Amino acid sequence: MAIRPPEPQDIHFMRRALALTRRGLGRSSPNPAVGAVVVARGRVVGQGWHAKAGEPHAEVHALKQAGELARGATIYVTLEPCHHAGRTPPCTQGILAAGIARVVYGASDPNPRVAGGGGSFLAEQGLDVTPGVLEAACAWEHRFFMTHVTTGRPHVILKTAATMDGKTASATGHSRWVTGGASRRFVHRLRGWVDAIMVGSGTALADDPQLTCRLAGRSNPLRVVVDSRLRLPVTARVLDPAQAPGCLVACLDGAPLERAQALSDAGAQVLRLPPDAAGRVDLSALLGELGGRGITSLLAEGGAGLAWSLLEGGLVNEVMYFYAPKLVGGAAAPSMVGGPGLERMDKAWPLSRPMVRRFGDDVMLWSIIQA
Amino acid sequence: MAIRPPEPQDIHFMRRALALTRRGLGRSSPNPAVGAVVVARGRVVGQGWHAKAGEPHAEVHALKQAGELARGATIYVTLEPCHHAGRTPPCTQGILAAGIARVVYGASDPNPRVAGGGGSFLAEQGLDVTPGVLEAACAWEHRFFMTHVTTGRPHVILKTAATMDGKTASATGHSRWVTGGASRRFVHRLRGWVDAIMVGSGTALADDPQLTCRLAGRSNPLRVVVDSRLRLPVTARVLDPAQAPGCLVACLDGAPLERAQALSDAGAQVLRLPPDAAGRVDLSALLGELGGRGITSLLAEGGAGLAWSLLEGGLVNEVMYFYAPKLVGGAAAPSMVGGPGLERMDKAWPLSRPMVRRFGDDVMLWSIIQA
Repeated sequence: MAIRPPEPQDIHFMRRALALTRRGLGRSSPNPAVGAVVVARGRVVGQGWHAKAGEPHAEVHALKQAGELARGATIYVTLEPCHHAGRTPPCTQGILAAGIARVVYGASDPNPRVAGGGGSFLAEQGLDVTPGVLEAACAWEHRFFMTHVTTGRPHVILKTAATMDGKTASATGHSRWVTGGASRRFVHRLRGWVDAIMVGSGTALADDPQLTCRLAGRSNPLRVVVDSRLRLPVTARVLDPAQAPGCLVACLDGAPLERAQALSDAGAQVLRLPPDAAGRVDLSALLGELGGRGITSLLAEGGAGLAWSLLEGGLVNEVMYFYAPKLVGGAAAPSMVGGPGLERMDKAWPLSRPMVRRFGDDVMLWSIIQA
Repeated sequence: MAIRPPEPQDIHFMRRALALTRRGLGRSSPNPAVGAVVVARGRVVGQGWHAKAGEPHAEVHALKQAGELARGATIYVTLEPCHHAGRTPPCTQGILAAGIARVVYGASDPNPRVAGGGGSFLAEQGLDVTPGVLEAACAWEHRFFMTHVTTGRPHVILKTAATMDGKTASATGHSRWVTGGASRRFVHRLRGWVDAIMVGSGTALADDPQLTCRLAGRSNPLRVVVDSRLRLPVTARVLDPAQAPGCLVACLDGAPLERAQALSDAGAQVLRLPPDAAGRVDLSALLGELGGRGITSLLAEGGAGLAWSLLEGGLVNEVMYFYAPKLVGGAAAPSMVGGPGLERMDKAWPLSRPMVRRFGDDVMLWSIIQA
């Protein structure tokens, strides 16, 4: 066993490995978009990222690029190297075979299938191993994977756009547009990072959104509509079968058969689910089903009723709230989170200290749900 | 006439004059909290601020401190020197008498009583005059005065605290507390800066607030409750006659006489006003009355109905919205702005690009209403 403390240069090279994760983000699911850097005598001699599930992991790319220079070198990996064979051989074997002398990693592998983990194994094989360098940043970068592996469900981001007085639409339901162009462009980037987007049938009916990622070189996420009684018309733009990977419509198992047939004919996958205690589609079951299909991240885009149901079920991991500098007013105008609401302010769900980002004149507050 | 362009050192000394305005803020009403600095041979030889209405203006203090060194010196003033006699002689006379050679000022005097203004007069008398140095910052600092002088009404700040999902209370009405201690302390500072605070009767009944400024050395603002039918109980804490300058209750002219008498006996000033077109207390008339009494600034602290009425009347100048990192949900929970609301999102009232400030874990967005 040779678990070693960090060395001064470790943060520098781990930052470099972290930067590489962005190149695989949204493409590597259900695997994490790991970044890796091989360093020999203080110089980077190889770098890699995980570009696509089923293809080689980040470590393999970096070791291949380093070639013979990997012998006696250090490898920096944002996530503990895998020690189990999936669709590709375990990375621990590749690291051993390349003759790497030292392994530095950020986040620990939370995978319950891994007994002991790649770090311990490599230390037992005589390599110097340093865990936990920029651990929080690496865990954040791989949070979709972490949530998916530990809960079996996708990591859920609740995203809502509202006026500064907290309205997502006017009292008459008019909502085009709440936020400005810069915010809306960022949402398309978000859609390119996640595996699925979810809306409630109310939003699908009111706004008729496409829910596609309109950025070049980015694939669309799976579109999911929660539609208990299958109210969605076959002409809904979200169904468009030309937009891979298609649209999944989740309904109650008692929903009308002829509506299900019509939506299937229009290209949707219809998923029948049992009701939860309140008689709505059981969202925990739906997310479990999506997780089982390799969906590691999901962006919930509306509306207020779906937001409430997800929050009430303890299914939300983070919120991204965009506030546009305008006021629309209206006691009856819809807000970010609907439903019956919590009874007491001192029992409100706590969020982390928000990160603040500006998009044009809009302000986005981004928080993690405190479990 | 000798109107001159700015010199390189002007911004530096005007910043210093601006910093002095803070010392008079909230104490000088209905006069502006002007700051002034006298500079001779590149050194500050006098400084002053307007500490209290009826007492000498900032320029007089600064000139007195400079003494004989004022002869041939430059004076920096955040607002164009006054040229009319009020409760004190015009500052232009003091500047001439002291032998000042150059006058630099920030914002122009918007006072309609001033014909030509102090700047033109001093230039005609042969002094070098430079207007408009840090003009926007100076006008912002004196915005209470500017609004009051140009409209006859106080400058209205709409302040609301909400959860990140835009609720000011839970659906059951529970609201203690929405924001954290740092935000609430800042609100007490705000109360020390303004001349009056206003709430609707709903907020007064639900929260029974004191609306006092609990900061040492700061006086309370006038407390104003808009209470059409005089529902406020005589036990309401806001009435406390021991807290100068007392509480004004604005009601419809048809409100019950015996309730008015009871509230008067409890120490309130009851102000009867005609109804507006919607049958509510005419807020424009109320603000005009307050302006006539020398109230230059007013903080509207709640609730959603009052916020709507003020906005609909075009009576709000800026909004300060505090968002606390928590979620409470509830389609029926009250939000920042109530009333019927505007019909279309694209007709929403525009706000300026918000300033962002953090108070503890809360975030405050601060915008000006775009007229």
